[in-house]
Amino acid sequence: MADAKALKRTRFTDVFNTIRDEVLEYVKAQNVPADALEWFHRSLDYNVPGGKLNRGLSVVDSVEILKGRALTDEEYFKSAVLGWCVELLQAFFLVSDDLMDSSITRRDQPCWYRTEGVNLISVNDAFMLEAAIYYLLKKHFRQEPAYVNLLELFLETTFQTEIGQLMDLITAPEDHVDLNKFSLEKHRLIVVYKTAFYSFYLPVALAMYYCDIPHTHPTLPTVDPYKLASSILIPLGEYFQIQDDFLDFSGTPEQIGKIGTDIVDNKCSWVINTALSLASPAQRAILDENYGRKNPEAEKRVKEVFYAVDVPGKYYKYEEDAYKRINGLIESIPVEGLGAEGQVKLQREVFTSFLNKIYKRQK
Amino acid sequence: MADAKALKRTRFTDVFNTIRDEVLEYVKAQNVPADALEWFHRSLDYNVPGGKLNRGLSVVDSVEILKGRALTDEEYFKSAVLGWCVELLQAFFLVSDDLMDSSITRRDQPCWYRTEGVNLISVNDAFMLEAAIYYLLKKHFRQEPAYVNLLELFLETTFQTEIGQLMDLITAPEDHVDLNKFSLEKHRLIVVYKTAFYSFYLPVALAMYYCDIPHTHPTLPTVDPYKLASSILIPLGEYFQIQDDFLDFSGTPEQIGKIGTDIVDNKCSWVINTALSLASPAQRAILDENYGRKNPEAEKRVKEVFYAVDVPGKYYKYEEDAYKRINGLIESIPVEGLGAEGQVKLQREVFTSFLNKIYKRQK
Ligand SMILES: [Mg+2]
Ligand SMILES: [Mg+2]
Ligand SMILES: [Mg+2]
Ligand SMILES: [Mg+2]
Ligand SMILES: [Mg+2]
Ligand SMILES: [Mg+2]
Repeated sequence: MADAKALKRTRFTDVFNTIRDEVLEYVKAQNVPADALEWFHRSLDYNVPGGKLNRGLSVVDSVEILKGRALTDEEYFKSAVLGWCVELLQAFFLVSDDLMDSSITRRDQPCWYRTEGVNLISVNDAFMLEAAIYYLLKKHFRQEPAYVNLLELFLETTFQTEIGQLMDLITAPEDHVDLNKFSLEKHRLIVVYKTAFYSFYLPVALAMYYCDIPHTHPTLPTVDPYKLASSILIPLGEYFQIQDDFLDFSGTPEQIGKIGTDIVDNKCSWVINTALSLASPAQRAILDENYGRKNPEAEKRVKEVFYAVDVPGKYYKYEEDAYKRINGLIESIPVEGLGAEGQVKLQREVFTSFLNKIYKRQK
Repeated sequence: MADAKALKRTRFTDVFNTIRDEVLEYVKAQNVPADALEWFHRSLDYNVPGGKLNRGLSVVDSVEILKGRALTDEEYFKSAVLGWCVELLQAFFLVSDDLMDSSITRRDQPCWYRTEGVNLISVNDAFMLEAAIYYLLKKHFRQEPAYVNLLELFLETTFQTEIGQLMDLITAPEDHVDLNKFSLEKHRLIVVYKTAFYSFYLPVALAMYYCDIPHTHPTLPTVDPYKLASSILIPLGEYFQIQDDFLDFSGTPEQIGKIGTDIVDNKCSWVINTALSLASPAQRAILDENYGRKNPEAEKRVKEVFYAVDVPGKYYKYEEDAYKRINGLIESIPVEGLGAEGQVKLQREVFTSFLNKIYKRQK
């Protein structure tokens, strides 16, 4: 089992080496000096392949589920290219997010902007990670009917994520705590825009376009499979992020592999917003005074309020509700799949495979 | 004459107000909170319309020249939308460039990142200026045959400009002078990638796509009008930047409207590279010791070497040669234009209008 997972990762990562070299070949062909080429090479290797690769792999997994069979080598390769384009998009966001947030480490190593000689050049490095996406899409998909849809999907998802970042940046600046700006509704909006679109909808929609699933089909003209997918995946992404927020607060370092810092970092997380919605005036005063402060005593007082208003209980209830609700949405897809006969159909399993990976996760 | 120019600017700027509102409408429709919407509004107004607008206006001018007649209102509007997309692209570059360069002012006001509360949020603001381009292209051009070409042209030009920025950033960091990294050849590469593609080729190629000029045509199957345009406009952009570099050194503040800072900023300009190619070992030592230093005495010593090796004389010679060479390239286009009968043809005047605006300019 662990071997199968490692093998899967290795095969996927092999494709990264190919596309990284393709992008570098293109840049090299412009007669760019060796030092600039090497710089871009380092940036690609440092920032793109080292994560969990969930988003990228889920493109390949989704194509496999949609087609209902093992992929040919060419199908695997092209799905993996789309997967790596998602990882490039994420790298673009993370490199710039770490700079904007003055973060220290990412994936157990110093953030890119903190490595030797980089600093603000990381802004342009982030741009170039983004640009690589469109070079690869053109190279590998220009002849396909889905090409424009793929371009637009990446471009629109990018804009949505940037809108989410803006809301996050001005709602929860690290250096100025104002809990009046927070609310569960704002939290939901930020999560949907900043995370859910690119992490959940994008990989599945890419797989759907790659399989040439149309927006309309003869039997159910009122149902757009992409809208349907979005209506399931966006709540799923929200649920995922709420788990992430809850684990940041409740998980032990042994369990989640890092020390939670949302409280000291003034994060607009589900946990603080739930607590705010339940706090008495006295508890609220404690939160106002102690949230987002770089000080373990303050953090401890915040956590006491979180337990006093029973955030964990609310979370378990939320999780059960979300699970049921999302399952209900998934069941609106016919058992035999949604789509025209003889064509690739949208399958429930695309969504259940996500949901079951996430449900009651502890890390 | 001045009135005609002001009128032209006003008409063009009216289109900005329309497209700015369209972009904001889209963001508003996502239920984004008022503070985030207002932030984006301020960023658009602060960063996009206040420049010389040469790049944006040249899209409209080129469409007019290509069509050989006054534009209908719809043609004007759509050409102007493309023009504003170029200005949005430039705003994206300038906002991030000023942050990366720690610049103080831009267009006679503080750089965006230095305005109240912005700082590193400017990174995401730059992203959003870029994203607006693709929202507008989809809104106004999705039904047109040129749509994919327009998307690809913006995406490729963006990548080229970012490659140019990278070369510039690692060749001439403000805080570390190393003239061994400089050369006229590297200067040429940086200028072509960082400036010429987006400032000269992009506006004209957009106009050509908008007029549905094809890449191939029946009479001269070996000539691609886009490649031909590029082969003229890239040297033109190079010439323009070399003028800019020379004026930064030789122009008086009264003449160029600003104080030249390329010497103290360690810029990899044509002037220093020309001087390096001519300097004796003793002069080279003076340049090594004094270039890129924040100190008026050092700047003065650098300027003395520039005069001693006769940079102005070299410049005048360069200018005459460039003018002749570019004119020769333009004359490779047939007098009656290049293209199929009954279709919009590529006209010499598209290029001569640029060249004549630039030749012997003093500011
Ligand atoms: Mg962050
Ligand atoms: Mg952040
Ligand atoms: Mg978290
Ligand atoms: Mg600059
Ligand atoms: Mg710069
Ligand atoms: Mg200059």
